[in-house]
Amino acid sequence: MSELTESVTRMIKEFEKLPGLGKKSAERIAYHLLKVEKKEALALADAIYAVKENVRYCKHCFNLTEQELCEICRDPKRNQTILCVVEQPRDLIALEQTGRYDGLYHILLGRIAPLDKISPDQLTITALIDRIKTSSFTEIVMATNPTIEGDSTALYIIKQLESIQAKVKPRITRLARGITTGNDLQFANKEMLADALAERQSFR
Amino acid sequence: MSELTESVTRMIKEFEKLPGLGKKSAERIAYHLLKVEKKEALALADAIYAVKENVRYCKHCFNLTEQELCEICRDPKRNQTILCVVEQPRDLIALEQTGRYDGLYHILLGRIAPLDKISPDQLTITALIDRIKTSSFTEIVMATNPTIEGDSTALYIIKQLESIQAKVKPRITRLARGITTGNDLQFANKEMLADALAERQSFR
Repeated sequence: MSELTESVTRMIKEFEKLPGLGKKSAERIAYHLLKVEKKEALALADAIYAVKENVRYCKHCFNLTEQELCEICRDPKRNQTILCVVEQPRDLIALEQTGRYDGLYHILLGRIAPLDKISPDQLTITALIDRIKTSSFTEIVMATNPTIEGDSTALYIIKQLESIQAKVKPRITRLARGITTGNDLQFANKEMLADALAERQSFR
Repeated sequence: MSELTESVTRMIKEFEKLPGLGKKSAERIAYHLLKVEKKEALALADAIYAVKENVRYCKHCFNLTEQELCEICRDPKRNQTILCVVEQPRDLIALEQTGRYDGLYHILLGRIAPLDKISPDQLTITALIDRIKTSSFTEIVMATNPTIEGDSTALYIIKQLESIQAKVKPRITRLARGITTGNDLQFANKEMLADALAERQSFR
């Protein structure tokens, strides 16, 4: 495609790296950005810059934030005795949208996945254990995805928790399986997630 | 979605403006960009900047270029007596890929479309007429898309050409309708386009 200029070819290549975008869609986006006003195209570029400059992980729970602590960790009205462990920030959002949970969260930033070469030390499990040791949670809700990898991650964490000496030994629960095994948490609807929260079960 | 930070929300909104991307795909891309290394995310932002800074339209034919003239207009080996009129740079690329055309191009940068409020003066028709007046083309190939709007645009241009006093009165042809009416030129396959080029017909 020597008829496209070098910059355009490079931009198409960068868009092709994004999830869900193939060559045709990347090209379509490139033509769109060529056509629109400079201001509009640069707004997208600047938004990417802003995210990479401003957004970091909450010091406590690893949620996304532009401050030291995230909105939830900063909120004194949240129930400080219950902790919900999720894989990703998007899972937190899905749970928040049910309006049925007022406790705190801990985001693992992934799940243990040997096939993808993701081991426990690449997640925030050490920080989670430390947090449980030094806080007074009465309940830990395991809300990893209902997949083999999500379940294994939950089991790994529970194993780690068994050996610790916490001030209060928290009850460990998991989301009720109103959600279908093999599905992705972020795509479950609110009702399904609300049921799963309401009927959460003792682990084992 | 107050749980997403302001920068992330803004970035998702910007991605949603791109053609073919809905809310879910924009979110998926956002999570991807949050996860990847800063360098990788900024490479995309910088590529957009580079395009908007460097890429302009060729002074002669309105193809994309990073210099004053595009690669094709700069190439002395191209046949200077035949001019192919297309709607968009991507149509030029599709035709180039057939390897069956060695003349010059003129890109209209759109088609006359009253419903989309695109009138002739928003296209490069005046520049095209001037170019034909001052050059010695022996043939003009109308290669607008085989749609109602593409055809109307071609007819409009032919009407304009009838009244001009060119050094040589060029023959006006159009692509053979090996291509299906209602389709988009950029998605036609090479063979189809090659046939259409080989069997181009006299206009009317």
